[in-house]
Amino acid sequence: MTWRFALVIEPAASDDPRSDFADTFRVIDPSAPALTVGELSTQRGDGVFESIGVVNAHPQEVTAHLDRLAHSAELCDLPIPHARQWRQAVVAAAQHCPPDGEGVIKLILSRGVEHGPAPTAWVTAAQAADNTATRERGIRVVTLDRGYGIETPANAPWLLLGAKTLSYAVNMAAIREARRQGADDAIFVSSDGFVLEAPTASLILRLGDRFVTPAPNGGILHGTTQLSLFEHLASQGHETAYETIPVDALARADAAWLVSSVRLAAPVVAIDGREVPLDREVTASFNRYLLSPRD
Amino acid sequence: MTWRFALVIEPAASDDPRSDFADTFRVIDPSAPALTVGELSTQRGDGVFESIGVVNAHPQEVTAHLDRLAHSAELCDLPIPHARQWRQAVVAAAQHCPPDGEGVIKLILSRGVEHGPAPTAWVTAAQAADNTATRERGIRVVTLDRGYGIETPANAPWLLLGAKTLSYAVNMAAIREARRQGADDAIFVSSDGFVLEAPTASLILRLGDRFVTPAPNGGILHGTTQLSLFEHLASQGHETAYETIPVDALARADAAWLVSSVRLAAPVVAIDGREVPLDREVTASFNRYLLSPRD
Repeated sequence: MTWRFALVIEPAASDDPRSDFADTFRVIDPSAPALTVGELSTQRGDGVFESIGVVNAHPQEVTAHLDRLAHSAELCDLPIPHARQWRQAVVAAAQHCPPDGEGVIKLILSRGVEHGPAPTAWVTAAQAADNTATRERGIRVVTLDRGYGIETPANAPWLLLGAKTLSYAVNMAAIREARRQGADDAIFVSSDGFVLEAPTASLILRLGDRFVTPAPNGGILHGTTQLSLFEHLASQGHETAYETIPVDALARADAAWLVSSVRLAAPVVAIDGREVPLDREVTASFNRYLLSPRD
Repeated sequence: MTWRFALVIEPAASDDPRSDFADTFRVIDPSAPALTVGELSTQRGDGVFESIGVVNAHPQEVTAHLDRLAHSAELCDLPIPHARQWRQAVVAAAQHCPPDGEGVIKLILSRGVEHGPAPTAWVTAAQAADNTATRERGIRVVTLDRGYGIETPANAPWLLLGAKTLSYAVNMAAIREARRQGADDAIFVSSDGFVLEAPTASLILRLGDRFVTPAPNGGILHGTTQLSLFEHLASQGHETAYETIPVDALARADAAWLVSSVRLAAPVVAIDGREVPLDREVTASFNRYLLSPRD
């Protein structure tokens, strides 16, 4: 990944009536120092973020990402980001993504500098890694206990399980653990035996003719890519469903994918060492759709 | 809290034989930009930290903090910090703490800049907040579910529950939740009903003549202040114990404290609205000890 652009945002109040926020933006060199050591994002992972896929300089599903950023901010008692302001920043960042190829725009809203007056916020644009081989050949995954019962997140909102926070160390540790076990990625499962999500992706299973994903609850991030793909599948007449999925259903999957904004649809070819059929045709159609311009 | 000093460290290999690491330090202005937006500490809370209390420019329990930093680094697959190098940085930072009064030195070891060659590391020094009133009048706390069963952390090391990581958003959210409930702080309890720790402190209960703290397991950070206080209590002939403490034992506590490196011993005067006796004499003796120079 190569950084191409970074923009610091002075966050506007959510009722700011302006239509142009250009004077709240400050373009910076992404490789130059920009944040102080007092930043709470860096001291405590205290903030929220989004990663938006960009295809041929078109940012995908911006509204869905901005909605989720606002939802995460609300769960974390952060000021709600101003949608028009952030959208304008995304548009500015997209102009610096590869005109032919894939990029990623990252939005970060931090609680700000410790004891400071306001949150800090910035947007970056980068060239995406080449995920072509992963999309074609697939990934091997292992299941890892997320530690929580399926009902816990709804009853303990302070665990922030439905928010996409900057406190991502566990997600990264789970991927390292998966690699230690000889796999590429992980699927988190609840301590009482239900399938949740991957550390940085949503899970979609095909069970017979149905496409199924774990029912969103407080503990699962509602995936923008999964949502988009389910709408697409439904429009093509396929049956889709949100279900509470016991772990043993993984052994019955006729196909499985981890889907996310930048890697897109990565077919799962093994779960805990058991092979899963790779449906090349459906996978290719998923990624063709996900690489088409989507709003 | 007022920032007084910051030092960026170029981390040495753990077998570096040097005795002087001055040329690996770079003093920076703590209020000036120092970190890039690519920092993984800021993007993902991906790193570990320590907060060291400083009294009259003397940093307390440096060895215990450096040991725990190394333990956290190991759990997070980060390079083990070089103890002599970090100790020298702590000594340099301590010179910038108030000569008469309390300070705090923070050590941060981040995974570094994304796709960068090495971790980044820095040390800050600041004047501590005045905690005198809290130490005398005490705090009201509520219990909050940490979501995990007591046995979970030992079986799921990727949850990093024994590491002091920068992914601290849940700890901060728990304190906000406590305040929403009209309290000052929280005590985390396991989903199966055992007492754990506070979001940023260890819990000590007095049950009759015994001083008891939750048994350290993978899910409890071994508190440097609690350890020091238990050694002190034992040297005075008091009985101390590490135990698996059911939540209902909180109602039987004859006294309780949250202890941590900077706030020191904060007596708990209420748990979930039930009053807890405040032992002024013992509390004052705890804080006299904790404010004395300790190595």
